[in-house]
Amino acid sequence: MAHIIRRKTPAVSIGSMTMGSDFPVLIQSMTDTPTADATATVEQTLELVESGCELVRWTINDDAAANGAVEAIGRLRAAGITTPIAGDFHFNGHLLLQKHPDLAAGLDKYRINPGNVGRMREQDDPFSAMIKIAVDNGKAVRIGVNWGSLDRDLLAELMDRNTAAASPSSVRQIIMDAIVQSALESARRAIECGLPEEKLVLSAKLSVLQDMVEVYERLARECDYVLHLGLTEAGSGVKGITASSAALAILLQKGIGDTIRVSLTPEPGTARSREVAVCQELLQSMGLRYFIASVTSCPGCGRTKSAYFQELSGSIREYVALRMPVWRAQYKGVEQLKIAVMGCVVNGPGESRHADIGISLPGRAEDPSAPVYIDGEKSVVLKGEQIKEEFIALLENYVVRRFGG
Amino acid sequence: MAHIIRRKTPAVSIGSMTMGSDFPVLIQSMTDTPTADATATVEQTLELVESGCELVRWTINDDAAANGAVEAIGRLRAAGITTPIAGDFHFNGHLLLQKHPDLAAGLDKYRINPGNVGRMREQDDPFSAMIKIAVDNGKAVRIGVNWGSLDRDLLAELMDRNTAAASPSSVRQIIMDAIVQSALESARRAIECGLPEEKLVLSAKLSVLQDMVEVYERLARECDYVLHLGLTEAGSGVKGITASSAALAILLQKGIGDTIRVSLTPEPGTARSREVAVCQELLQSMGLRYFIASVTSCPGCGRTKSAYFQELSGSIREYVALRMPVWRAQYKGVEQLKIAVMGCVVNGPGESRHADIGISLPGRAEDPSAPVYIDGEKSVVLKGEQIKEEFIALLENYVVRRFGG
Repeated sequence: MAHIIRRKTPAVSIGSMTMGSDFPVLIQSMTDTPTADATATVEQTLELVESGCELVRWTINDDAAANGAVEAIGRLRAAGITTPIAGDFHFNGHLLLQKHPDLAAGLDKYRINPGNVGRMREQDDPFSAMIKIAVDNGKAVRIGVNWGSLDRDLLAELMDRNTAAASPSSVRQIIMDAIVQSALESARRAIECGLPEEKLVLSAKLSVLQDMVEVYERLARECDYVLHLGLTEAGSGVKGITASSAALAILLQKGIGDTIRVSLTPEPGTARSREVAVCQELLQSMGLRYFIASVTSCPGCGRTKSAYFQELSGSIREYVALRMPVWRAQYKGVEQLKIAVMGCVVNGPGESRHADIGISLPGRAEDPSAPVYIDGEKSVVLKGEQIKEEFIALLENYVVRRFGG
Repeated sequence: MAHIIRRKTPAVSIGSMTMGSDFPVLIQSMTDTPTADATATVEQTLELVESGCELVRWTINDDAAANGAVEAIGRLRAAGITTPIAGDFHFNGHLLLQKHPDLAAGLDKYRINPGNVGRMREQDDPFSAMIKIAVDNGKAVRIGVNWGSLDRDLLAELMDRNTAAASPSSVRQIIMDAIVQSALESARRAIECGLPEEKLVLSAKLSVLQDMVEVYERLARECDYVLHLGLTEAGSGVKGITASSAALAILLQKGIGDTIRVSLTPEPGTARSREVAVCQELLQSMGLRYFIASVTSCPGCGRTKSAYFQELSGSIREYVALRMPVWRAQYKGVEQLKIAVMGCVVNGPGESRHADIGISLPGRAEDPSAPVYIDGEKSVVLKGEQIKEEFIALLENYVVRRFGG
């Protein structure tokens, strides 16, 4: 497989995890429960962790949230859950961290938004105060710029300067400049305040894909910090998944990005952990990490017995998802297993040969038999009512033989 | 917005549509009804066309399918549906097109898979026979290579040559070489047979993202033909959407690709047209085309009143989707409208200012009022039980004022 060359970044340790170019691209997400409600927050955090989330962020917006967070961290750690927890602070983070030293000590990372923390020019400004608490507690910090909360003073300053310029830039260009400048200046200031580069993560999120890509490309050129990627406010459903996958893929393919978040507006009833599933599928499809045995299947067409094919490929996918936790514990490397379930003779045998184990179902006009291919060679031919059960038995045998012992 | 510079390709006319670098990236899909069943095929074709599919492919695998296709084309054209129809041929395409001249005349494009059409070295081989029928009928052709049905003889030849080489390549590299060579040699042969470059489309699909990207990058360097992009056998659900979006985005961002298909295995009960929705969201998120007014919304967090926020953003999305057909007919450019529905004060006002019209809902701890921003300026502040209805009224006014007349 073509190799993605990661942009060189330092190793940043955040509680039990490390991010940076020598480590896997980490997956993170954020709860949407009120943090003051420790029980609800622990429950959703566990759901995210179970699904593969490697860093969980909670908003900490007032004293009640600070107390809830301390309580929830205590419960998680007592249960042996070591996933790092990041606190998301806006406006009053410095006050909350000063007032709640157990919160400052319990969190693994603080997210600081330079756009709404107040100016950082003076001594003892809120920004510097937060950085100093992080330094004193040995915590990591993400400086998280978002164009939805961009430093208005900085933007106004750049706008004024632009108006006076001989050849003024576009408003879009000024906004991009302000975002990049806010991120880089804040990082410089954090380091002046004593934060080591090995504790610093930078992000600069926008909701317009091309603008977001351009900002990250500039940051990648202009600094060496660990970068957290995200398309902010991506929306819901197919839109959110598609736009986020596209934006992150373009950057990851260039080696940019050490941790990712996919920001989906949940549709009522869908699990928060869908964000994590998208991250896993993205990293796996790009060959950056492996999480679950993959099931390659065709879209079906007029040649395939569509209902039967859809049902069988769905059953195999479900079976693999259910077995994965057990397989993962017993069989090292099983995440890289490639299964193919194909609907007819056109691409069925070929795609099945490319997989570790694959089955080519008979299309409408074909002989009602389904050849199985193992390690690129035709093995048995299945027929009759028990194709699913027999293929699953072959799959289990394959897993034991290939990944066992 | 950053501008994608399209790779220069000729204008290929396919029935009522034209593809190529001077035209929009076209969206296509394929039915999975038996083509012999003209009624089912017309019905699914209409569903795809309604959803925005700009070229529909049908498999034509036997005489019954050929007859069904002729019947279905007749019904579509009689109803005024001008969307081009492509026939997907494998193994026996030359025989079917020879035997059914009304099929050869009725289709707008033939897809030929060089991997299973038989060798094309001799005179009057099946490949050349199909090309000649296309030339005689003035039809477009897609030479569609797929690694699931790669020319086995060509692959064996390259493998043998590699074994004898001083420094042999990897098997993966040989497969990639065979795919590229099969596509380019077939194209050269088609042009020798009289097919103009303005009637030729090329594709070379693989199911592994990095391999697929590499093959298309090579094709883009080594020829000037119109390219049809697709990640084959992408699978279903989040996996299929994520992997397809990532693969296509990486190539489209480099200006590669004149038409796209997203190959999703349908989950039982989901519409075939989901493929089209993914294509539209992808092209729109990348700024290549606009189809529907966009609703930017945050993922919510512990600050937002999550259920209320999810319900309102969902309602606005649904309202826009329902109104879009009417708006599109009345208001030119309304596809580019940007709406924001945000959950709290952190990024709400900022993101709403970046949108054409946006609303920032009150988070849990905020004053229960929701400022509305129009063209970047704060307009009214909504409160109470009728926020949704009042925002929709403002939205309708905005659409009329901005895009009316």
